[in-house]
Amino acid sequence: MNKILVLFDSATGNVQQMAELVGEGAALVPDTEVRVRGVEDASAADVEWCDGLAVGSPTNMGVLSWKMKRFWDEEMIGSWMKVDGKIACAFSSAGGWGGGMELACQSVHTVLMNFGFLVFGVTEYAGKKMTGHYGAVACKAPREPEIQESCKILGRRLAEWTALYVHGRKDQHPDAKEIPRLTPADVD
Amino acid sequence: MNKILVLFDSATGNVQQMAELVGEGAALVPDTEVRVRGVEDASAADVEWCDGLAVGSPTNMGVLSWKMKRFWDEEMIGSWMKVDGKIACAFSSAGGWGGGMELACQSVHTVLMNFGFLVFGVTEYAGKKMTGHYGAVACKAPREPEIQESCKILGRRLAEWTALYVHGRKDQHPDAKEIPRLTPADVD
Amino acid sequence: MNKILVLFDSATGNVQQMAELVGEGAALVPDTEVRVRGVEDASAADVEWCDGLAVGSPTNMGVLSWKMKRFWDEEMIGSWMKVDGKIACAFSSAGGWGGGMELACQSVHTVLMNFGFLVFGVTEYAGKKMTGHYGAVACKAPREPEIQESCKILGRRLAEWTALYVHGRKDQHPDAKEIPRLTPADVD
Amino acid sequence: MNKILVLFDSATGNVQQMAELVGEGAALVPDTEVRVRGVEDASAADVEWCDGLAVGSPTNMGVLSWKMKRFWDEEMIGSWMKVDGKIACAFSSAGGWGGGMELACQSVHTVLMNFGFLVFGVTEYAGKKMTGHYGAVACKAPREPEIQESCKILGRRLAEWTALYVHGRKDQHPDAKEIPRLTPADVD
Repeated sequence: MNKILVLFDSATGNVQQMAELVGEGAALVPDTEVRVRGVEDASAADVEWCDGLAVGSPTNMGVLSWKMKRFWDEEMIGSWMKVDGKIACAFSSAGGWGGGMELACQSVHTVLMNFGFLVFGVTEYAGKKMTGHYGAVACKAPREPEIQESCKILGRRLAEWTALYVHGRKDQHPDAKEIPRLTPADVD
Repeated sequence: MNKILVLFDSATGNVQQMAELVGEGAALVPDTEVRVRGVEDASAADVEWCDGLAVGSPTNMGVLSWKMKRFWDEEMIGSWMKVDGKIACAFSSAGGWGGGMELACQSVHTVLMNFGFLVFGVTEYAGKKMTGHYGAVACKAPREPEIQESCKILGRRLAEWTALYVHGRKDQHPDAKEIPRLTPADVD
Repeated sequence: MNKILVLFDSATGNVQQMAELVGEGAALVPDTEVRVRGVEDASAADVEWCDGLAVGSPTNMGVLSWKMKRFWDEEMIGSWMKVDGKIACAFSSAGGWGGGMELACQSVHTVLMNFGFLVFGVTEYAGKKMTGHYGAVACKAPREPEIQESCKILGRRLAEWTALYVHGRKDQHPDAKEIPRLTPADVD
Repeated sequence: MNKILVLFDSATGNVQQMAELVGEGAALVPDTEVRVRGVEDASAADVEWCDGLAVGSPTNMGVLSWKMKRFWDEEMIGSWMKVDGKIACAFSSAGGWGGGMELACQSVHTVLMNFGFLVFGVTEYAGKKMTGHYGAVACKAPREPEIQESCKILGRRLAEWTALYVHGRKDQHPDAKEIPRLTPADVD
């Protein structure tokens, strides 16, 4: 089985909604087991279990939340040098565009790279004026269809990369599939 | 006179439109001279002239454009250690939300800090779901009123900080003025 | 009086040593009051009090520590929109060069910019192969003279910018002073 | 064959020396073909050819050099959406510690993520006080043995990940090999 963990912190429920969408996207890849866990219920064992990891945090001052940071500083410190090479990505919601959601995703990538994860974003567009080059981003709750789609693509891509790379399933390369990948020109 | 330079690179005209709005915002501060210059027409003398600087770039792969980078690597290198303490900010447009506009602004800040500039973002909101905590950001052309307002606030704030700090005009502190500063609650 | 707060989190004592050096540097500017405070003893009132702020954190996974993050997420949230325009900088220690100290400083800048601070680094060199373009950095304890000097320059520069800009003391511009500012060529 | 491209820009020769070391490290993985190319001699075809890519740039104002940026903005733009899922990493040299080498590597990661690359750093230490959590970093030329080792580990790790993931060679997982991976405690 392809194993995906969606780990999130959420104060208002917005990031939790994103997490569920990311999990739905991952589940689109056959033979994938998806765990969606709040950071206060998750443990290092969940991270060690997974092949691929999506980390979601509220955008708090442009950086991941202190609770999500504490998870990596304290809960995960004993797993350092044990999780190298897993594949990972990020997602975040802020109160306004320009409010730091990309930077919060970047701070998650920085933490993940320290642990030896391979981190990625999504090249294609999820709809008009919406992409997730540095992870899925939302303004408040992920209500708009294209933002929901962006979350799902992120989760699916994560599960595709782990299916391809960890499990050798070459049919799961995004370019080997029938699913169209939208460019800016396609959504204009 | 309070002296503001708006320096931009623009491939499609979108960032140029933002630059003009940033310049308009700066001009709202009395006794302010504003120069708006494309990067291929600007020189180190323009930067040395100004009290405050706004730098705009297209979001190209999440980082400032190579032409804007070249300006700092080559044209400005001789001014290094001569422009410390000037005040500066950034703005950028990308093709989609989540497309790297915040990261492109961050890359501009990184360049500017290297030269000793004091860099800042805007705390308040420009309208519903729109802020510029790390500089003004747009998706494509700045058509929406709240994005235009975000550009103008950035320019005004820049001219306010330089009026206050370089010219000692205490009436120009944003909190000393009658202009309301919107919080997320105000725009919800 | 010129008012400087040095706010730090320290697990091993290394960042505390840096904080003391930053404080010493700030105190070199006449008529400056310096407070050095551990994050667990500091309050929002300390930040509201100061003209200029230096924030130090251990490099934990390339990002500021969760305790320092919590201070801004929780203790400071009520001061958002009340501290705009203060001047600020960062410092950090990691276990090895390449271990994320610059990125940790950057994450501090991101938090500070969200609050409307003007953030800066140091252009000049502190000695052979040592600068603080993005804040003062150390590998473990700040034992080497050039790293100690880098911390002191950061603190002094902070107090210089606030003396100049907040208090209008033009003699405190770094270029108006007799203190030499080293370029790479000077230290080679 | 496992295919590795080391792509670099170098003004002084320092990054070129790093590139050669990264290439040497990659060649330690059996059945690996390594191309080391200066950015002015490289083409999009080189990037399309490789399984894994290491990108080196001088630290110019804390961001990759304009010449390296131009390569991605112009030469590579036609390959966007064609290189997803390749594995990549970064390296950089600056004039002083604290001079922006980590941030320059981060800017390379930002560019690479936009193209859909999976980016990584090195968890282990290369020697006393030296690691490459966000890519290999050097101060000036890579003369010190631990910096040379850091470059080699980066290259080897890149070739290990591509051997493992692209070619299914499970014996190439770093934890499946006899080569010790140093922790901070080992080098203290």
